[in-house]
Amino acid sequence: MRLLAIDLGGTKLAIGVFTTDGDLIAEEKLPIDKRSGDEVGQLLSQKIKDLLSQCAEEKSIQSIGISIPGIFYKDKGTVWAPNIPGWENYPLLKEVQCIAGDVSVTIDSDRSCYILGEWWKGAAKGCTDAIFIAVGTGIGAGILVDGKILRGANDIAGAVGWMTLERPFQQDYIECGCFESSASGDGIAKLARKFLSTTGDYTGILNVKPVNAITAVDVFDAYDKGDAIARKVIDHCIEYWGMAVANLVSLFNPQKIIFGGGVFGPAMQFIPAIYEEAVKWAQPISMKKVKLEASLLGSNAGLYGAAYAAKQNLYNLNGSHEK
Amino acid sequence: MRLLAIDLGGTKLAIGVFTTDGDLIAEEKLPIDKRSGDEVGQLLSQKIKDLLSQCAEEKSIQSIGISIPGIFYKDKGTVWAPNIPGWENYPLLKEVQCIAGDVSVTIDSDRSCYILGEWWKGAAKGCTDAIFIAVGTGIGAGILVDGKILRGANDIAGAVGWMTLERPFQQDYIECGCFESSASGDGIAKLARKFLSTTGDYTGILNVKPVNAITAVDVFDAYDKGDAIARKVIDHCIEYWGMAVANLVSLFNPQKIIFGGGVFGPAMQFIPAIYEEAVKWAQPISMKKVKLEASLLGSNAGLYGAAYAAKQNLYNLNGSHEK
Repeated sequence: MRLLAIDLGGTKLAIGVFTTDGDLIAEEKLPIDKRSGDEVGQLLSQKIKDLLSQCAEEKSIQSIGISIPGIFYKDKGTVWAPNIPGWENYPLLKEVQCIAGDVSVTIDSDRSCYILGEWWKGAAKGCTDAIFIAVGTGIGAGILVDGKILRGANDIAGAVGWMTLERPFQQDYIECGCFESSASGDGIAKLARKFLSTTGDYTGILNVKPVNAITAVDVFDAYDKGDAIARKVIDHCIEYWGMAVANLVSLFNPQKIIFGGGVFGPAMQFIPAIYEEAVKWAQPISMKKVKLEASLLGSNAGLYGAAYAAKQNLYNLNGSHEK
Repeated sequence: MRLLAIDLGGTKLAIGVFTTDGDLIAEEKLPIDKRSGDEVGQLLSQKIKDLLSQCAEEKSIQSIGISIPGIFYKDKGTVWAPNIPGWENYPLLKEVQCIAGDVSVTIDSDRSCYILGEWWKGAAKGCTDAIFIAVGTGIGAGILVDGKILRGANDIAGAVGWMTLERPFQQDYIECGCFESSASGDGIAKLARKFLSTTGDYTGILNVKPVNAITAVDVFDAYDKGDAIARKVIDHCIEYWGMAVANLVSLFNPQKIIFGGGVFGPAMQFIPAIYEEAVKWAQPISMKKVKLEASLLGSNAGLYGAAYAAKQNLYNLNGSHEK
């Protein structure tokens, strides 16, 4: 018996076939290229159709799990994914279920899949209360509370990028929230550009590219080479990440907070500094109890989570995990 | 069949006898006066002993629920209550269970009892996801997630007074956290004193008392009379309360946030302004879904919550509520 897991990102599609014990036995990655709207749905459906028909004789794929880069509205079966043009209210469940027939289909948000994956096979194994902070282009969190995913009244819980960490309100916060505006991948690049535009005599390494082409990766590279602007940006991010960790610790009293996403990666080296910052701000007893760790599954966290969501559905685990 | 509910505060003890349907049929309030440590435990135990013996013949009291002003450590049965001297690790469960015999005893934190009470008989009726922000001397929150109280890994979740809302870190935050340091009852008085000490030419109503005797009540009174310093303090609090609401909305996606505690009271008039502030900061879809409301049970929220905790224990509801 096999689980088919799909991790749909803004730019690529990852596909994995898992045993029900969580061994990843086949894997494939496809670019989404310039597809939008229905075309992304068709790519997904075609891929599922192919895989199901390849495995049709032995009927080995029993359940499908899909991680999506946005919000899955369970009551309507639709997806809102801001990075896929035309997916404001996309009827993904119906579309995939048509292809899948009597194979069960589960869809969940990427942030829920990240923590589910880490709980199943990664850094959150054995935890009842743990949080995965995904810092990539944006920032979101998958939150495990007493062994279950925190979903909220409308499946939108975990929007940590909107955390308020600094007064007064700035126009920058309107689009994506205060925390995300300067501590996400996009935020890091934006902050570097802002500091560059206000530092007239700067002649450092970040001047090599046109200012608008600077990315978070450039900032991390410059930091490693001792650049002053990059240091200023990263110091600011460490303060924000630490304050955000403090808020999550004070509110949720979790056993672990796990960092993942494209930015962690290069930012893993800062986890001790983030911890030191958080200690200043957080409820002190809860802070003593928490561990900050790097994702163990890295870019595969969503895929493992999608596979576990598929398993949950297959065994009617009903959203509460085996403990 | 009756439930005995006790709401232990820092300065007084409230006692209520409830039907299992939630009707409060007898009520009593006692001052704690200058009691500390064992004396508070003895007062509580004596009161329970008296009530049980009064009702002994008909055996009407079947379950006891106690709300405490701090943290109840379920695994050890002990209480940490910062406002009761000597209650760092007080073995309350054992002490009360000795008196209660075969009558069941449940202890829970005041913040959990507040949301439980409001869920049973107040503003959170019918909610699966709701938050009670208690703003009194300090600030805490009772958080209902998918019909269950959020407890965290060590029963310390909901310490919202420690939320970080402003950089850089200030020494004031060490004792009680950033949010609580200037938006609790104590914080309001402290902020007024701070503003007074830096406003040389002030001749307003807050000058009547010695500066160190000013309380939050004085600030609210002065605000109602149009005082400029009081307005500055309250405007700051509205900003903090709004930012805190925004964080809770973005993280939890709740149906309702309910304001209670000694400060709300006089601050209820500001709920529309708090809403306007929160709208600026919060995840916009979640913000549209949430309602901000005043506590319906007021100073009795803890008592109702303690009664419901007693009922839960009696019927082995195991921490998950009837829906």
